[in-house]
Amino acid sequence: MPQEPKILSTEELAAADAKWVTLQKIKWQDPTGKERIWEAAARKTRGSTGVDAVAILAIIRSESNAFPPSTVIIEQFRPPVGKFVIELPAGLIDPKESPEEAAVRELEEETGYKTTLKDILESAPVTVSDPGMTNANMKLVIINVNVPASETKVPEPDQKLDQGEFIVKRVVALKELSKVLEEYDSQGYTVDAKLSHFALGYRMAGTVESS
Amino acid sequence: MPQEPKILSTEELAAADAKWVTLQKIKWQDPTGKERIWEAAARKTRGSTGVDAVAILAIIRSESNAFPPSTVIIEQFRPPVGKFVIELPAGLIDPKESPEEAAVRELEEETGYKTTLKDILESAPVTVSDPGMTNANMKLVIINVNVPASETKVPEPDQKLDQGEFIVKRVVALKELSKVLEEYDSQGYTVDAKLSHFALGYRMAGTVESS
Repeated sequence: MPQEPKILSTEELAAADAKWVTLQKIKWQDPTGKERIWEAAARKTRGSTGVDAVAILAIIRSESNAFPPSTVIIEQFRPPVGKFVIELPAGLIDPKESPEEAAVRELEEETGYKTTLKDILESAPVTVSDPGMTNANMKLVIINVNVPASETKVPEPDQKLDQGEFIVKRVVALKELSKVLEEYDSQGYTVDAKLSHFALGYRMAGTVESS
Repeated sequence: MPQEPKILSTEELAAADAKWVTLQKIKWQDPTGKERIWEAAARKTRGSTGVDAVAILAIIRSESNAFPPSTVIIEQFRPPVGKFVIELPAGLIDPKESPEEAAVRELEEETGYKTTLKDILESAPVTVSDPGMTNANMKLVIINVNVPASETKVPEPDQKLDQGEFIVKRVVALKELSKVLEEYDSQGYTVDAKLSHFALGYRMAGTVESS
């Protein structure tokens, strides 16, 4: 029976015992020539692409305008945060997989939407998630999910989750996204900063340029 | 004489020896009731507000429309990434400081724009930067920088950087932001994911809803 996930305990982990993440002591030379130290965290799983993770912004469009342009977001318990977090579909890149292949795979696994590399509208440059703390980086891939005119509502295909993955998906009209994220926050969920920034930009474009 | 900052060496750091960051072994119970382990990184500096950092989205507006609505971004060498990164102004929250006070302080230090708590347009909910890897969180504060009709161009006040801080600021029209970030990327800079997502949302709102 499904039950509420929860944190049981948290203890300090020696970098030497960690499999997925590590700490780094970085010696660097600042612009005055002075030698300084910076402490950082890093993933140990980065492969040959040099990119840790992909996130997918699906643009779900109806050929007949049966519904407004939409995207799909996910709800997932995140142990590092100890809460359910609202994010774009995302995942680590497998060995020998390109970021774009990973995006197509993860979108199907986490949301059920089956696409191909030809549906990719844009593969954004590699960006860094929290550059004062870690080298962790990611690539956002924008994928078109075209819905034929014959479909009168947003299709909701079954997810293809791995065993041990518990992810709820939700389709949201892009123009409602900012409001939906606010509602999640007020209900005790936490929103991913990247998703929240995207939604804010989307909302602000309308108000700032027209006022 | 200013010179190019650079990484001299990187070595593994034991969690016990780290002052700013640490690693955690989190024991959690998944929705099936199974006990599982997750490895995460965390900052050691989080204070009583429960928030690690603030970022500031300044909205620089001319009362006389002498220039388009703009924001200010910063260029800064980030040792964890080993590159110059383009970000919104941001910083950690000092002890006994509210996130909003930190935002007003950091905006002035990093960009020279002097504002007060009354200029805050919005203090967004706390969001998480990379929830699969870390509990690191942040709050985006949107601050109005009003430019009187008498000023014919964007004012460029002096920064108030701490010794050892090397930050270049740049004012960008919001509608140019996405293009400017692409240019930085093509020049070898790396863009922060949150800033990049904001710019993408801002750009996409115009194209998706109108097509």
